[in-house]
Amino acid sequence: PFRTCSFFLSLLNYKTEKYVIAENRKIGILFRLYQLAVLGYIIGWVFVAKKGYQEKEEAIQTSVFTKLKGVALTNDSNKGLHLWGAEDYVIPPNGEQVFFVVTNYIETPNQRLGFCPESDRVPDGRCTSDDDCEEGETVIAGNGIKTGVCINSTGTCEVHAWCPVEYSPRPQEPLLSAAENFTVYIKNFIRFPNFNFFRSNVLETAEANYLKNCTYDSETHPYCPIFHLGNLVSWTGSDFQEMAVKGGSVGILIEWKCDLDKDYSLCNPQYSFTRLDININNSVTSGYNFRYAKHFKDPKGESFRTLYKVYGIRFDIMVNGQAGKFSIVPTIIALGSGIALLGAVSKGAFACDMILLYMMNTSSFYRERKFEIINFNITAKMPVALSNLQKHFIQAI
Amino acid sequence: PFRTCSFFLSLLNYKTEKYVIAENRKIGILFRLYQLAVLGYIIGWVFVAKKGYQEKEEAIQTSVFTKLKGVALTNDSNKGLHLWGAEDYVIPPNGEQVFFVVTNYIETPNQRLGFCPESDRVPDGRCTSDDDCEEGETVIAGNGIKTGVCINSTGTCEVHAWCPVEYSPRPQEPLLSAAENFTVYIKNFIRFPNFNFFRSNVLETAEANYLKNCTYDSETHPYCPIFHLGNLVSWTGSDFQEMAVKGGSVGILIEWKCDLDKDYSLCNPQYSFTRLDININNSVTSGYNFRYAKHFKDPKGESFRTLYKVYGIRFDIMVNGQAGKFSIVPTIIALGSGIALLGAVSKGAFACDMILLYMMNTSSFYRERKFEIINFNITAKMPVALSNLQKHFIQAI
Amino acid sequence: PFRTCSFFLSLLNYKTEKYVIAENRKIGILFRLYQLAVLGYIIGWVFVAKKGYQEKEEAIQTSVFTKLKGVALTNDSNKGLHLWGAEDYVIPPNGEQVFFVVTNYIETPNQRLGFCPESDRVPDGRCTSDDDCEEGETVIAGNGIKTGVCINSTGTCEVHAWCPVEYSPRPQEPLLSAAENFTVYIKNFIRFPNFNFFRSNVLETAEANYLKNCTYDSETHPYCPIFHLGNLVSWTGSDFQEMAVKGGSVGILIEWKCDLDKDYSLCNPQYSFTRLDININNSVTSGYNFRYAKHFKDPKGESFRTLYKVYGIRFDIMVNGQAGKFSIVPTIIALGSGIALLGAVSKGAFACDMILLYMMNTSSFYRERKFEIINFNITAKMPVALSNLQKHFIQAI
Repeated sequence: PFRTCSFFLSLLNYKTEKYVIAENRKIGILFRLYQLAVLGYIIGWVFVAKKGYQEKEEAIQTSVFTKLKGVALTNDSNKGLHLWGAEDYVIPPNGEQVFFVVTNYIETPNQRLGFCPESDRVPDGRCTSDDDCEEGETVIAGNGIKTGVCINSTGTCEVHAWCPVEYSPRPQEPLLSAAENFTVYIKNFIRFPNFNFFRSNVLETAEANYLKNCTYDSETHPYCPIFHLGNLVSWTGSDFQEMAVKGGSVGILIEWKCDLDKDYSLCNPQYSFTRLDININNSVTSGYNFRYAKHFKDPKGESFRTLYKVYGIRFDIMVNGQAGKFSIVPTIIALGSGIALLGAVSKGAFACDMILLYMMNTSSFYRERKFEIINFNITAKMPVALSNLQKHFIQAI
Repeated sequence: PFRTCSFFLSLLNYKTEKYVIAENRKIGILFRLYQLAVLGYIIGWVFVAKKGYQEKEEAIQTSVFTKLKGVALTNDSNKGLHLWGAEDYVIPPNGEQVFFVVTNYIETPNQRLGFCPESDRVPDGRCTSDDDCEEGETVIAGNGIKTGVCINSTGTCEVHAWCPVEYSPRPQEPLLSAAENFTVYIKNFIRFPNFNFFRSNVLETAEANYLKNCTYDSETHPYCPIFHLGNLVSWTGSDFQEMAVKGGSVGILIEWKCDLDKDYSLCNPQYSFTRLDININNSVTSGYNFRYAKHFKDPKGESFRTLYKVYGIRFDIMVNGQAGKFSIVPTIIALGSGIALLGAVSKGAFACDMILLYMMNTSSFYRERKFEIINFNITAKMPVALSNLQKHFIQAI
Repeated sequence: PFRTCSFFLSLLNYKTEKYVIAENRKIGILFRLYQLAVLGYIIGWVFVAKKGYQEKEEAIQTSVFTKLKGVALTNDSNKGLHLWGAEDYVIPPNGEQVFFVVTNYIETPNQRLGFCPESDRVPDGRCTSDDDCEEGETVIAGNGIKTGVCINSTGTCEVHAWCPVEYSPRPQEPLLSAAENFTVYIKNFIRFPNFNFFRSNVLETAEANYLKNCTYDSETHPYCPIFHLGNLVSWTGSDFQEMAVKGGSVGILIEWKCDLDKDYSLCNPQYSFTRLDININNSVTSGYNFRYAKHFKDPKGESFRTLYKVYGIRFDIMVNGQAGKFSIVPTIIALGSGIALLGAVSKGAFACDMILLYMMNTSSFYRERKFEIINFNITAKMPVALSNLQKHFIQAI
């Protein structure tokens, strides 16, 4: 019992490292400068610049609702005047995060299922004899299925298709050039699930009246959620009227950088705009179009349709964000790494030791004090002739 | 050769720090308590609570499919009875992650392109004389383009538009109040790409029959993927019938927190529900509506349309997740930081040293043993008169 | 002034740990092997394999645009030949990230609002007497609202619905089996917002001609963005014609792993394909279908519609990515943890100390040199009789 007792008592001894203090000015200054550099890095970079004491969250939850305003009158040579409202030119009309605004179109009215010549703008549809039109074969990138007949008057295969096939060329001027003046209201709701933090880009401080009249501008109205389409395109460095002819794709980036240790009113969106459909070396991917059809029935109950090939601008709203909040774990990790680094000052302060051990005439005196050599194996003693550099090198590793 | 050989041999010496052990009960207890606190933090917080030994993945891949069930009969004063199935009230109908359920609507049938007075509910359309209606100007937030004529009988400008323009007010009671009883089946498939882990919210253990009859309830059926729309809204703290009048937006949050070190059957979704369109200070952003049109042709081939302004509830399904799995790197980082911190016990056990060095009458004795002073520069020796506090401070840094 | 001055001067002393060097070959080898293992781990695993020196970004911004090509001729026994173009079989038609391709369908033409018997395939619609058909009740999973009458000829309740209700069974063979040969062009634009790094899956180096003719294949054309639908399905391990009957859901995963320290042309997408709607134990969730309607008006202005129940394949394009770039903070954290670990070599080199302190006959000699015992409290001195093991254990903690 006496032994066990004294064992537990001796657990309460305090163990600490033994230090050697060298009273040498030059080395001391070098040593303190090194310590200061490491401390400066830890405080300045890890804690102030990179906020290493914060837990970061990048998995943002986001909901976007869009609403377009504006009407445009188009004057098609064949069809006459036509009025386009948001219910017509926005596809889909239900206010999604990705929306398409029609700026140009080819209308092919009154198509009925039947047989007609393929368009001569489809390479695979051209023919010189019936042999070029194998029956039952699909016209590649075309409008129908070959019947096996080559129609001489057009030089194209006859196809089973919705007839007549699309024949108009794309208008050279955008029919809905007025789309430049449309506006879009973007509502973005975000949530950082780990912090359970909610926020919307429509600021609560804004008066209802403000929202009815403002237009976003990075300088004067950075938090107005209403955007002018012409501006959106011009901010990407493109020209709206030029893009409107063949269509294009514009990214609206909403960035939330929130420091949740500060007041939540400082957590505001940053908008930026980029063109998504362009490659500098290659124009093949530029443009944006697709087809859709409106279906009708005549009084006899037979189907016919109007095919639209619409060119326009697709807007992709992309939201990303990062929130940071003080948390103990990243703080400890950053601190721990910093302390380890500072610890390396004493342990691996190679430069200082190097000087003391090797470069000064008092080296051997210092070395004897810093290292206490315990020699177990008398016969394999370190030879006295070992050079100072070698000795030091061994000891410093 | 003798020198080189002995150099390599001496590399095999074992270098270890020299410690000083202070047999002092009070200090010892303090020291051990400090060690215990740090150990407790590392084990309890970093490893148990925060699972610091796991590699975390937050970049979840997710696919959501929705399907609504239910029919509603509406009784519009003008149009009589009308039956709404899912193919009508869900927009878009193809089972997307974000879907809209019509709960109220304004129908404006038989619109044709032409000239008619603007609605007197559009402020910019009102006029007292033709001067208020500049020809060719778009009515702001209106339905068409001004012709330059002010129509006295209505007090509004004549516009080129789809006529007649929308004139009915919004019904005060939701026409599809029965939508409260609709149900939605939500299928959510997730994948954590780094761990190549797949999972679906439709549990494999569930029998087919269970899925036909269950309804989600956080208490009784937490893993049933079928939701009652009325419940979804009421769980956000709102009233369905109230929200149905002007529309609204509801977020369905599906959260996956998966500990992949445990059995995969424990990786289950957590549902939560939140309203997305409300600001406490400001009601301007509440409500959800949009317009769409159905196009028709009369026997003469002329176009007319029915315009719908639909109010309803938009459901946004947002999925987020976090998976953790044991991995060596975060373990080492957490351990390394922990050890560094424990190391700081010996190195920076400031409090203990402080007491030993300064507050006890045996201080100078201890100090002499802990620090071995090597004086290179005899003339600049530390003065004997330096106070104990100063001395200690220097040594402890 | 003398005191203060000498205080600041003494700050410039250099403090370093005192080491004990044990000249023992066996322990030395063990000690160096341990150091090598730790160094190997830090360099090999943390830095080379896991790229611990990089800042990682997983919050990818992405925009996807799809375009389908191909036509199919269907031969419905009732309706005759019908030609399907991309504007018909892709829902929605506007090139979204999630798109649905019709492969099979049930058409119910000329539905008008009225009264008719419920389909006998709806369990809740069956009846034997009027009591089974409570007036005003919705048929569960049915097509309308019960009128209170049981129609004997069909054995089902009369309902207020779009009549006739859907009655055809699902075709046993997919009507659009030709969809197997359709192709889809997928354009994916990505951005890593923190690094402001842009990239598209349509490689800039590709010639325009290449894109017109290539088809994706993981071996021969890994960067061609045009996919054959039949291949997409077969790569998930399913059969296209089989899936086409009841529909299904296919995930197209695009993965970007970019090391931004290397040339950006090495940052290329990896495609993989997975089936999303199948559970091994349970087939209840397989299949994919929804309904939509086309609305018409007859010459009298009365509405009728054609209801489509479409079966098909939903393609979900999921993009994820990870970019890494050299950054000072993670490097320092990884280094710091590594150094801390290396430091633990000296400090916690338990095994080495254990052997020296306990297992060798020179132990007590070593112990006396490593630990310097300062005894403050003479009366509570550690008893001489304390065993070697106990002594060591205390000192090593």
